[in-house]
Amino acid sequence: MARVVVDVMLKPEILDPQGQAVQRALPRLGFEGITDVRQGKRFELDLDGPVDEAALARIREMAGEFLANTVIEDFRVRVEEPEGAAAGEAAEEEVAR
Amino acid sequence: MARVVVDVMLKPEILDPQGQAVQRALPRLGFEGITDVRQGKRFELDLDGPVDEAALARIREMAGEFLANTVIEDFRVRVEEPEGAAAGEAAEEEVAR
Repeated sequence: MARVVVDVMLKPEILDPQGQAVQRALPRLGFEGITDVRQGKRFELDLDGPVDEAALARIREMAGEFLANTVIEDFRVRVEEPEGAAAGEAAEEEVAR
Repeated sequence: MARVVVDVMLKPEILDPQGQAVQRALPRLGFEGITDVRQGKRFELDLDGPVDEAALARIREMAGEFLANTVIEDFRVRVEEPEGAAAGEAAEEEVAR
């Protein structure tokens, strides 16, 4: 079984009030030195077939249609190794839109 | 400027209705072969100092206290290369709790 991760983040030019709220809270809580915080979504998809180019193309299409609002959000699709494959998480990565 | 990513996901044993809703919608929308979907949060933190062990330790502490609810969520802290550093996103990775 393979796992594909879709990261969805607001585009850089879109205001992120959730991230700003976290950032503003940090100094009060004793954490200095963090200049910006952006909050987004992470989807973990488990596939029952192989993660080939065709599967990734379908997932990219799905991410652009259903997981992200591409007017205000960017998304990124990548293959993640199963648990235990420790350090090298990102086997493949792609910036979309 | 360095970027650290904190991924926060519900623990595997915790029900994820958002992910389930996505998963159930996919076949109706024409996307087959996805056996499980989990939805979580992704925080991108920009630091103005170096990302050394001390900074990562502080971020781990912060993530465990404020970004994740460690009763029901796991989190993972990793260093991300700046945009343009393409394929090798995960410079460091760690599974926490």
